[in-house]
Amino acid sequence: MTQSLFERHEPRLSQALSAISQRGYWSPFPEMPSPKSYGETANDSGKAAVLAYCNKQFPLELPGQTGWVGSEVSPYGIDLGIKYPRCDPQALLDAALAAMPRWQRIGPQGRIGVCLEMLDRLNKRSFEIAYAVMYTTGQGFMMAFQAGGPHAQDRGLEAVAYAWREMAAIPKTARWEKPQGKNPPLVMEKKFDIVGRGVALVVGCATFPTWNTYPGLFAALATGNPVIVKPHRHAVLPAALTVAILREVLAENDLDPNVVLLAVDDARATTTSLAQHPAVRSIDFTGGNAFGQWLLDNCRQAQVYAELAGVNHVVIESTDDYKGMLRNLAFTLSLYSGQMCTTTQAIVVPADGIDTPEGKVSFDRVAADLGAAIDKLVADPAVAAAVLGAIQSDDTMRRIEQAASLGDVVLPSRAIEHPEFPNARVRTPTLLKCDAADEQAYMVERFGPISFVVKAKHVDAAIALAERMTTQHGALTAGLYSTKPAVQRSMIDACARGKVALSINLTGGVYVNQSAAFSDYHATGGNPAANASFANSALVANRFVVVQSRAHA
Amino acid sequence: MTQSLFERHEPRLSQALSAISQRGYWSPFPEMPSPKSYGETANDSGKAAVLAYCNKQFPLELPGQTGWVGSEVSPYGIDLGIKYPRCDPQALLDAALAAMPRWQRIGPQGRIGVCLEMLDRLNKRSFEIAYAVMYTTGQGFMMAFQAGGPHAQDRGLEAVAYAWREMAAIPKTARWEKPQGKNPPLVMEKKFDIVGRGVALVVGCATFPTWNTYPGLFAALATGNPVIVKPHRHAVLPAALTVAILREVLAENDLDPNVVLLAVDDARATTTSLAQHPAVRSIDFTGGNAFGQWLLDNCRQAQVYAELAGVNHVVIESTDDYKGMLRNLAFTLSLYSGQMCTTTQAIVVPADGIDTPEGKVSFDRVAADLGAAIDKLVADPAVAAAVLGAIQSDDTMRRIEQAASLGDVVLPSRAIEHPEFPNARVRTPTLLKCDAADEQAYMVERFGPISFVVKAKHVDAAIALAERMTTQHGALTAGLYSTKPAVQRSMIDACARGKVALSINLTGGVYVNQSAAFSDYHATGGNPAANASFANSALVANRFVVVQSRAHA
Repeated sequence: MTQSLFERHEPRLSQALSAISQRGYWSPFPEMPSPKSYGETANDSGKAAVLAYCNKQFPLELPGQTGWVGSEVSPYGIDLGIKYPRCDPQALLDAALAAMPRWQRIGPQGRIGVCLEMLDRLNKRSFEIAYAVMYTTGQGFMMAFQAGGPHAQDRGLEAVAYAWREMAAIPKTARWEKPQGKNPPLVMEKKFDIVGRGVALVVGCATFPTWNTYPGLFAALATGNPVIVKPHRHAVLPAALTVAILREVLAENDLDPNVVLLAVDDARATTTSLAQHPAVRSIDFTGGNAFGQWLLDNCRQAQVYAELAGVNHVVIESTDDYKGMLRNLAFTLSLYSGQMCTTTQAIVVPADGIDTPEGKVSFDRVAADLGAAIDKLVADPAVAAAVLGAIQSDDTMRRIEQAASLGDVVLPSRAIEHPEFPNARVRTPTLLKCDAADEQAYMVERFGPISFVVKAKHVDAAIALAERMTTQHGALTAGLYSTKPAVQRSMIDACARGKVALSINLTGGVYVNQSAAFSDYHATGGNPAANASFANSALVANRFVVVQSRAHA
Repeated sequence: MTQSLFERHEPRLSQALSAISQRGYWSPFPEMPSPKSYGETANDSGKAAVLAYCNKQFPLELPGQTGWVGSEVSPYGIDLGIKYPRCDPQALLDAALAAMPRWQRIGPQGRIGVCLEMLDRLNKRSFEIAYAVMYTTGQGFMMAFQAGGPHAQDRGLEAVAYAWREMAAIPKTARWEKPQGKNPPLVMEKKFDIVGRGVALVVGCATFPTWNTYPGLFAALATGNPVIVKPHRHAVLPAALTVAILREVLAENDLDPNVVLLAVDDARATTTSLAQHPAVRSIDFTGGNAFGQWLLDNCRQAQVYAELAGVNHVVIESTDDYKGMLRNLAFTLSLYSGQMCTTTQAIVVPADGIDTPEGKVSFDRVAADLGAAIDKLVADPAVAAAVLGAIQSDDTMRRIEQAASLGDVVLPSRAIEHPEFPNARVRTPTLLKCDAADEQAYMVERFGPISFVVKAKHVDAAIALAERMTTQHGALTAGLYSTKPAVQRSMIDACARGKVALSINLTGGVYVNQSAAFSDYHATGGNPAANASFANSALVANRFVVVQSRAHA
């Protein structure tokens, strides 16, 4: 049965394998929320399905249920009130362990077939997932659809492709025939079994509950491990939908649905006891440094794949398209109110300004023009609401309120009324300027729509500062605007040393905070912002071991 | 220059890539110390070269030298007295860091070419390395030659092949072209650079100073990292020779020889300060649990690839070749006096004995016959000395002396005079028997020629005990003797759960403690005896990151 799934989806797998070896553009899942791709009724029925979950018990049967729990608060002010099964952690682990042997026994092909089917089924529910993501995270609809649906599915598929490539490279059997001179050779028959390390815990974040979860989820599943998804308590619904869909696929294929489980609990002790359990052998985590570092320090029985905080930066030295640069940066700083792990926080500009086709533009002028570009982008409330989305957390609201004290305010944040959701908390970005010496202001992650134009002595100092931000505080993205090959070379080298992805002279429809599956490696895994990348061999290769048996032929 | 090395060695690389995808028999380096392969004078000149090092300063120029150090004691009683440069750890790190950029700049092909040339050059010096290994570790000559020379080179080449496969799978550039409906596509040019994580520290052990060192050494080098080799203070010469040869190859190719460095120091603080230095990003370690666990706990800035202690086991239920089984086990227990990480320690036998073609053989009889088989193997002092080698450490001598108190002595250890080295400490193996309940005796690693025949209630209990040894204490090898498919299935499943390699019914010229490069995965990396395997993708894939830069086309 699982074999036929593999065969059915093999063409897509082949394309995915080709994509990870080329890393050009490829996406099997249509990113436009168009009726042509998803059906005429997909939008309405997806939205209706999500609204129907509100103020009810979410339909998911899990082992060891002890009650119901749920505390999602929609940044749009929608009354969610969804309750999810609260389960005894030990019961979840026992169920996962019980499901593991058969999940391993169906082998790489079987598991890959199931994973590909799961992704296909997730894709068909993209609208439902999009509204779930939108309502819980505060993303605008378009981002919620794309990042929450097809782009997240792309990332999951990418991990599956890497897992398959690694597993397929291991022969199932071998005949070892060692010559013995004139005597008959020594001959051994060997079998090589791929065995998952054990239960995987995948801890989701509040802002990208599917995009940041699917790589670890599918990497672990494909390599033979049952997965317990522990969503952020403010973004459970997208994870619950995902788990429900995956369990459906498992059950339909006569597999134990407990290969995929959901752990929802407001009590932190539940998460920590799960994370430290000896049976849990891998943890995927996206979130803040405090809990991430706790996991790294205290869950030594598990491999921890962590994406943490960072300080993303852009250096501006010169540009041949000043307005294009400003528009591009303004969009980056505004998109989902800067609540992306890839959003730029520090824009480093030399004290004597930058070179443009219109001549030198002063530091203060760059800051002011960038502020104006943001202001223009968010001038129309409808556009603003669509681009900004809503502020996900109280913490981010607080950071916005306190930001003005951190530097000279170039552009203050203001509240905007959302055209559709009157209770939505929508805030425009704030832009500050400060000196490079004011490290306590800009050189710590200020998650949300808070950015700094930082004055460096000269371009070399700007690049050195960018490198130091990367190596000391971590960064997922770096940007450079310069028309000079020597400056580009210098920044490319600094980013190679700091191990951060660099975007150069973005002025069009690509943004430094965007990372495309099958092409961009999201995070390098080589600086404090993340110890692993989406997606590469290292994300999958150590999630399983090879156990051999050998005997004389 | 490095490019031409790559081209010169490409046929060997192709064969190695084919070998790791087939994992049948393959070895490019002749394992027989034959004049045909290595030249008529190779043996004499290799031996003379090693003796010429004795009681002198070893010719190796290293940065930051502060003095000379050396405390090797030959288990054969040979007066070594070699002094090695003692260097300031910070100077070594600075030199490694200074050498890193160019080592990264020559790229995967350049590095692979150099690594392949290094292995070729090591192979040409196999006799010299063999005598260095023999005299420092106490191995018999044949093992010292094979495991210290060609088999270690095989393992190094295997790691290089995996490194190349992973790096070659990453495109250097990509053109990302995203359709935009009727508008022109978005087009980005992307570059992907492979960047090593940083300085690698490779910590050697006293018994296999090359075989256990080369996988980590070459995995780190190939993926772009400079390496500091820290040998065990009792087995420095093989590492010093290796480092000297590798530095020669680097210098000849206009590369900074400080890509490979040697850290010799009797002061433990030197090692710990190196291991904890922020610049050190990976540590490969083979050795005891105490220091291994210290590294895992205290060097969190680095990835630690550790092979630690374990309790290897064999379960005997039945055999169709009783004498063959006894001979095979006797050789395993005797080879290098059990001073292998793969030597069997616990031989678990059901209380009611085992089935053989001659009928049931009782537990006590199995133990007695195994003792007799060992006794017979070591009866001839010349054969005994060649097989047993000498006892490497004082600790192992102590363990042998104290072993008799751990159970019923089936075969006591005795001293043998070595025909060539009168001061060699040669001891025959000791075999004990005990009950499964005597866990404090057999269920802790007793490194050296000390083994136990353990009485289990029945075969199921024996297999369960074997599994528990694996999961609780770790194991690199497991064995089974059974003619019954159901018992074999049960043990195969137990070993898959415990994640340990299994050898079934070995009665001929293959032994449970032998692990062949390019075919056997040495360690699974999935139980407490080791967190990594020699060799697979996981050994290499996380030693580098991919750093991308992208710009509009």
